[in-house]
Amino acid sequence: MILTVTPNVALDVTYRVDRLVPGSSHRVRPVGERAGGKGINVARVLRALGQEVLLLGFVGGATAGAVTDDLDRCGLAHQLIAVDGATRRSVAVVDAAGEATLFNEEGPRVPATMWAALEAQVAAGLPEAAALVVSGSLPPGSDDDACARLVGLAADHRVPVLVDGAGGALLAAAAAGADIVKANAGELLDVAGGSEVTAAAAELRRRGARAVVVSLGAAGMTAWTEEGAWRAAPPARITGNPTGAGDAATAALVAGAVAGAPWPDRLRDATALSAAAVLQPTAGSVDLRDHRRLVPLVLLEEHHAPGLDR
Amino acid sequence: MILTVTPNVALDVTYRVDRLVPGSSHRVRPVGERAGGKGINVARVLRALGQEVLLLGFVGGATAGAVTDDLDRCGLAHQLIAVDGATRRSVAVVDAAGEATLFNEEGPRVPATMWAALEAQVAAGLPEAAALVVSGSLPPGSDDDACARLVGLAADHRVPVLVDGAGGALLAAAAAGADIVKANAGELLDVAGGSEVTAAAAELRRRGARAVVVSLGAAGMTAWTEEGAWRAAPPARITGNPTGAGDAATAALVAGAVAGAPWPDRLRDATALSAAAVLQPTAGSVDLRDHRRLVPLVLLEEHHAPGLDR
Repeated sequence: MILTVTPNVALDVTYRVDRLVPGSSHRVRPVGERAGGKGINVARVLRALGQEVLLLGFVGGATAGAVTDDLDRCGLAHQLIAVDGATRRSVAVVDAAGEATLFNEEGPRVPATMWAALEAQVAAGLPEAAALVVSGSLPPGSDDDACARLVGLAADHRVPVLVDGAGGALLAAAAAGADIVKANAGELLDVAGGSEVTAAAAELRRRGARAVVVSLGAAGMTAWTEEGAWRAAPPARITGNPTGAGDAATAALVAGAVAGAPWPDRLRDATALSAAAVLQPTAGSVDLRDHRRLVPLVLLEEHHAPGLDR
Repeated sequence: MILTVTPNVALDVTYRVDRLVPGSSHRVRPVGERAGGKGINVARVLRALGQEVLLLGFVGGATAGAVTDDLDRCGLAHQLIAVDGATRRSVAVVDAAGEATLFNEEGPRVPATMWAALEAQVAAGLPEAAALVVSGSLPPGSDDDACARLVGLAADHRVPVLVDGAGGALLAAAAAGADIVKANAGELLDVAGGSEVTAAAAELRRRGARAVVVSLGAAGMTAWTEEGAWRAAPPARITGNPTGAGDAATAALVAGAVAGAPWPDRLRDATALSAAAVLQPTAGSVDLRDHRRLVPLVLLEEHHAPGLDR
C-alpha cells in the first residue's frame, strides 16, 4: 500500500463556457465536481497502475462532503482529518477550444495539532506502506517542517518517500533526506536561488535529497540521482490537458521506486505516463494503452555536464 | 410582511484577482459567500426600507447550509424548501479595477411536487402579507405556469404581486393578471416579440398585466401603468457595481405598491434606490442617505407616445 498525503485537498470544479469574456456574465453548463489536489491525482494514477493506496490529508466545511463522496464513488480508500474552515475549491473555466482558466482558493488553516494527528496516521500506516508521497502546497498555517517530519518518519521505517512541493517545505524535505524531491523549474529556482536548474538541483542534493526530479512541462523532465543524471522528453509535443500531467509523472516515479527499477526506466515511465495524462480530459486519469505505446518513444539523454554533482 | 419568492436561490461567491487573464491560473484571495438570487436581494433591500420580509424558495445540497447560515446571520426570516440537487453557485471574479466576470451555475431541478409545497406556503402566508414578490429565473424542471399560480393566489387574497422574470413565466404571470411585471428590455422583447419596447409592454398589458416596468440599465426605467406611462432616469451616470440594482428598484416598486403611492413617486423612488445600490459593493445593499439625496434629482418624463396603450 502506498500512502499519499495531500496537505491541501481541493474540490475541483469544472465550468464549461463557449468563450470566456472578462467583464461579462456566463451561464455555465453542467458542473463536474471531483476530489482534487496533487496528492489525490497521484493516488488516482497509482491506482490505475495497480497499486493499493491510502489517501491522507485535511478536509473541512461544506465542500468536504463532496470530496469524500467522490473518493468513495471512485473506490479510493481515505482517512482524511477534519479541520475547521472549508476545503478550497479550484474552479477551472474551460472554453470550447479546451483552454482552461483556473481560480484556486487558498484552503483552510491547518494548525499544528492537526499536523500532529496526520503524523500519527502516517506513523501508523508506514509499517504496511511500500512508499510515502507528499504532494502539493501546504495549507495556510502550516509549518515548513511538517513535511520534513513526515520524511523523517518514512526514513525511520526505511520506506521510500517522494515530496512534490515548493518553497520552504521543499527545502526542508530535501534537508530531511527525502529519497526524491520533485518540483518544476520555477519552484526549484525559487527555493535554491540562482538561474540554473542544474546548480539548483545540485544544491538540493547537497542539502540532503537523494534524487531531484525537475519537471519541464511539455519538454519532459530532468533528474539528478545517485545512479546518474538524465533528461527525458516525450517523442513529440503532446497537446491536451496538462493539469495533472506532473502528478502522473509522480505516480510513475513512486511506482518505480517501489519496484526498485533503474532510474532510466523510471524516467521513461514517468515521461510516457505524463504524456498519457495530457491526452485525458481530467487530471488523475490515464489510459495505460497510451502509456505502453509512448514508453519506447521517450527520448532519454544522459547528462555529462561539467561540475554535475552526482 | 412581504413574501419574497426566489425560485432559483444562489450562493454568491466573490473571487478577487488583480487581473483576469484567460488561459492562466489565478490564486484567489479570501472568498466572500452570501445568499443570493434576485428575490433574496429584493428582500435585503425591503428590509433596509423597514419592511418585514419572509423569504421563500428552494435550496439543496452542500451549498444550502451556507445560504441559510448567511440568512440567519443577516436576520432574514426564511422558510426555504429542501430539494434534491445543489443550490447553484454564482461566482463573481472581480479584478482590481472592480470589473466583474460572472459564472452562473444552473441550479437544481425543482419538480412539480416541490412547487406545490411552495404554493401551499404562499397560500398560508398571504393572509398576513402586504405584498408578494416573485423574482428571478425559474430553476430547471419548472413549469412556466408555476409562477402564474402564485399570481392567482395573491389575486385571490387581494394582495399586490410583482413578478420580475423572463420567458414563458413572465408571459404567464402577465396573463394571470400580475399587478406589476418587471423585466429588462431584452427579456421583454424576447417574450413579446418585435423590436419596440413600447409595443412589447403594451402586449403584456393586453395579456393581463396591470403595469409593466422595463429596466433600461444605467439609463433608468420606463413604466406603463393604469395611471399613465413614464420614463425615469438617474440624474447622471452612476458608476459602481450594477449587480442588484434592478433588485433595489423592485424593492422600491413593491414598497410603493404597499403604501399605495402614486406611480410617479414609485418610479422616482425606484430609480433613486437603484442608483444607490450601484454605489454599494455588494448586491442587496443600499445606503438610504444616497437614496434620499438622489430622489429629488431623478428625471421623470411622461410618455405621450402615439398608440400608447394605457
